[in-house]
Amino acid sequence: MKTKKKNISKWKHRLHEIIYEADTPMGKWFDIILFIIIIISIILVMLESVKTIDDKYHNYLFTAEWVITIFFTIEYIARIISIKKPTKYIFSFYGIVDLLSTIPLYLSFFFAGSQVFLAVRALRLLRVFRILKLVRFMGEASQLKEAIKSSRAKIAVFIYTVLILSVIMGTIMYLIEGEEAGFTSIPRSIYWTIVTLTTVGYGDIAPVTPVGQIIATIIMILGYGIIAVPTGIVTVEFAKQGSEGSDDKTKETDEHKTFIHTNTQVCQNCNADNHKDNAIFCYNCGNYLNEH
Amino acid sequence: MKTKKKNISKWKHRLHEIIYEADTPMGKWFDIILFIIIIISIILVMLESVKTIDDKYHNYLFTAEWVITIFFTIEYIARIISIKKPTKYIFSFYGIVDLLSTIPLYLSFFFAGSQVFLAVRALRLLRVFRILKLVRFMGEASQLKEAIKSSRAKIAVFIYTVLILSVIMGTIMYLIEGEEAGFTSIPRSIYWTIVTLTTVGYGDIAPVTPVGQIIATIIMILGYGIIAVPTGIVTVEFAKQGSEGSDDKTKETDEHKTFIHTNTQVCQNCNADNHKDNAIFCYNCGNYLNEH
Amino acid sequence: MKTKKKNISKWKHRLHEIIYEADTPMGKWFDIILFIIIIISIILVMLESVKTIDDKYHNYLFTAEWVITIFFTIEYIARIISIKKPTKYIFSFYGIVDLLSTIPLYLSFFFAGSQVFLAVRALRLLRVFRILKLVRFMGEASQLKEAIKSSRAKIAVFIYTVLILSVIMGTIMYLIEGEEAGFTSIPRSIYWTIVTLTTVGYGDIAPVTPVGQIIATIIMILGYGIIAVPTGIVTVEFAKQGSEGSDDKTKETDEHKTFIHTNTQVCQNCNADNHKDNAIFCYNCGNYLNEH
Amino acid sequence: MKTKKKNISKWKHRLHEIIYEADTPMGKWFDIILFIIIIISIILVMLESVKTIDDKYHNYLFTAEWVITIFFTIEYIARIISIKKPTKYIFSFYGIVDLLSTIPLYLSFFFAGSQVFLAVRALRLLRVFRILKLVRFMGEASQLKEAIKSSRAKIAVFIYTVLILSVIMGTIMYLIEGEEAGFTSIPRSIYWTIVTLTTVGYGDIAPVTPVGQIIATIIMILGYGIIAVPTGIVTVEFAKQGSEGSDDKTKETDEHKTFIHTNTQVCQNCNADNHKDNAIFCYNCGNYLNEH
Repeated sequence: MKTKKKNISKWKHRLHEIIYEADTPMGKWFDIILFIIIIISIILVMLESVKTIDDKYHNYLFTAEWVITIFFTIEYIARIISIKKPTKYIFSFYGIVDLLSTIPLYLSFFFAGSQVFLAVRALRLLRVFRILKLVRFMGEASQLKEAIKSSRAKIAVFIYTVLILSVIMGTIMYLIEGEEAGFTSIPRSIYWTIVTLTTVGYGDIAPVTPVGQIIATIIMILGYGIIAVPTGIVTVEFAKQGSEGSDDKTKETDEHKTFIHTNTQVCQNCNADNHKDNAIFCYNCGNYLNEH
Repeated sequence: MKTKKKNISKWKHRLHEIIYEADTPMGKWFDIILFIIIIISIILVMLESVKTIDDKYHNYLFTAEWVITIFFTIEYIARIISIKKPTKYIFSFYGIVDLLSTIPLYLSFFFAGSQVFLAVRALRLLRVFRILKLVRFMGEASQLKEAIKSSRAKIAVFIYTVLILSVIMGTIMYLIEGEEAGFTSIPRSIYWTIVTLTTVGYGDIAPVTPVGQIIATIIMILGYGIIAVPTGIVTVEFAKQGSEGSDDKTKETDEHKTFIHTNTQVCQNCNADNHKDNAIFCYNCGNYLNEH
Repeated sequence: MKTKKKNISKWKHRLHEIIYEADTPMGKWFDIILFIIIIISIILVMLESVKTIDDKYHNYLFTAEWVITIFFTIEYIARIISIKKPTKYIFSFYGIVDLLSTIPLYLSFFFAGSQVFLAVRALRLLRVFRILKLVRFMGEASQLKEAIKSSRAKIAVFIYTVLILSVIMGTIMYLIEGEEAGFTSIPRSIYWTIVTLTTVGYGDIAPVTPVGQIIATIIMILGYGIIAVPTGIVTVEFAKQGSEGSDDKTKETDEHKTFIHTNTQVCQNCNADNHKDNAIFCYNCGNYLNEH
Repeated sequence: MKTKKKNISKWKHRLHEIIYEADTPMGKWFDIILFIIIIISIILVMLESVKTIDDKYHNYLFTAEWVITIFFTIEYIARIISIKKPTKYIFSFYGIVDLLSTIPLYLSFFFAGSQVFLAVRALRLLRVFRILKLVRFMGEASQLKEAIKSSRAKIAVFIYTVLILSVIMGTIMYLIEGEEAGFTSIPRSIYWTIVTLTTVGYGDIAPVTPVGQIIATIIMILGYGIIAVPTGIVTVEFAKQGSEGSDDKTKETDEHKTFIHTNTQVCQNCNADNHKDNAIFCYNCGNYLNEH
């Protein structure tokens, strides 16, 4: 009896290792296949949204959709049974996205048209960031993330200033241009201001009065100039990151850093990841990690 | 008599502390509530400007408008009576904005349509920068401001060059393209040049002759390239700020710096703010600050 | 006889000092008045180009135009007689611009419509850069110029790459999109590519085929990304300039530098400027500079 | 017999030196003439694509086209016979481009309309980068290339993030805006998102619903902000390159560096280039290089 239970535990453990981690050949293959299937599933949703293609190949697309939904269902169940505390996964961001990516087709039996929500599947692309753990890009990504994180406060102040500027300028343009030029309301005017300030410039709305065009000109030059601010913030932050990474630390440390990032262990108990390379127990719940 | 006068003074002082400062619980709450009401008042003005919404909910919006106007009136009067020299507030930038944000609805009794100027209220958003003193963002904002300030001269030269370039290029395009392509006058041509140079590109006016398109191409590449100039200026300035802040000064100094910025004392006599953390007297008029 | 000649020489010298230099009160006033008249003359040309305004105020504009033309004529003659070698001025860039800014109205007697070339006057704005020598902005401007100059080779390589990329991409888009989408010829296709690559995006031409839109997407992301290249070049150059100016040299040197730039002496003989502050003879032709 | 063979070899060697290298007067002239002819050939293809010009000057263009095709044919044959292992050239990128630039006009005898593929000739412009080896720009270009290369991983992560963001945002916009606003399918929606995110903003598709416009606003500010990321990456990389080039190495080394880049030797045997300045044997195949 005890042996059987241990066998089940071992079997679950192996499954967990394949699905959640990427340091065994099987685990790597699972991640690569999952990556490909996610890409295919998203291309499928895209193709279905194109009328001409959907009309012609509806049956093929529909079949493929079901094959993928069944695969996702199996994956979802496997993820639940292989983890010790299923709720940790079910109510995590990825757990919810995985459910929402799977369920619409089943719901379409009861509620016609609910397969529209298959589009949620696009969010599964985010999982790819996790899969990418395999490769050395992860180190670069985390460096980028770090730089953006530490300049967060400055960027918040910047965006806040841009928004206030847009509200004030948008209101002024509404008073000046009026209805004829397409500035039919203040929100619409603010929308136009942001379109102009960010140098997007659709041209669906454009000022027609001389005064409006002069103010539009000021907004454009402002927008052209203040893009320097986020650029400056992020560049300085990158430079700091770079000098920290290359000046202070020796080459050994650099290798070490990369090595840490290639550890793909995920705790079977609490789903925590990003463990240190030489970790034997989970830093979060103390669960034993490498029981092979 | 003396006691009464002192009581009044004390009462006024408490009011001043609540309205102008933010280091007491009441002062903080006042600022937060004011912030929310300003946001609501601006949203109201926005909604009123949208025809379909105004037609449907005119009465609700009108009532809400009056509630806010009365709150702003009370705030305006409180600001005047709690300060020792009311003219200091009344003729300050914020004093004028506060008045203009309040008065249009009253004026609409006498002059129909004057509630259009409620839009001035958008300028009250600027006060939010003051309210933000509460939080640590202020330090970041002042750093940004410092960087932009010290690169002001360079940015002025840059904008001046851009404007001259626009006038010359706009004139050339007017001579080349002529009326048919929408380049109906030199000012309009200059407007188009700025739209192109800043990479906004509405498309309401676009060159049609081959020569015009070649020059347009040159303007675009110019605009694409010279954006590097303000970016370079600001980035270098940020880098300077950053190295001054992190290399030379110790961690203690950094904390000190943040501490200074959290001081929200405002002189009751002359309305000066940004006092040093350990200031007992106003640096501007010598008035005693912390009389609790 | 000799005295008279010397008087004439002295009188010419004073005129030269007023017109070409800016270190006497008269010289400063002349520059400021000239600056204002240039601005007015350009505004005049602009207003004349606006049909509705020209129809209404034609006579006023015409009179003002003549007043300015006469002033420019006097200035032009004064510039010629006050300099020792008039050809040095006449065939210089500014000499030609000054002539072309003055002559069209006279020519309009013989050739109707030649006043169109009054627009050349916009080039006189460039002279303002010279007038600005007065103020400290000049130091900033020369620093900007220096930075751009020393990154010239890199920017040339960049622009060259952008152009080749545009030709190749434009040709590909022409083959893919064809006539219907507005890609009627390869030059037009290249024009569109540059409009897209520089993120201007007029929308007068836009891809319609799926393949075309995919390539358009690639061009956009390319354009969005490679703007980093000139920005990086110029920023690094600015940083170098900044560190050269602030680290190595002491404060004294900085003042000295500013001082040099405020010297507005112009050699009466050969028209050379940018003399050293303590220069007594022209560095170019050896002429005595400060004969008061 | 042996002498004759050696003569042939010598003759072939001279030809190789002229065509593939640029350190003899003949070699330089060949490169300059080739450069001019490539430019002319591309202008020809452009002009032919413009209907109005082609209709008028068809015969002239057709003749010029043949002259250039014959020149290119001779060049192609010369390149093959002057190299020891012709396959090395024939199946190289440049070999294929050269063939495709030459062959369409011959093919047009058999397949009407195949001269459309003359446009491939635009790719020959890339050869100009090789020709530029002559001048000092090459050093700058290789520095740029180096900087971009070493930030490749970071840029890949950035582009990947932008693409995922576009897919998710595009899908959301498709669900919100629907068919009426032009968001007819998910791919089209993603195309619009990239147009907006990169601040190109054609305006061929633009959101009309309030919610859509709010999300569009978010995408714009995102796009406006995240351009800072590639800029920061490349700037920091440039700064590193610059400091490596100027701080650590002496002036001698700099000259040495430039000197290396001016070596235009190309191995006659294996077509390898970028040899060291003092190289006597090919670093790739060991073939003797300088047999004059």
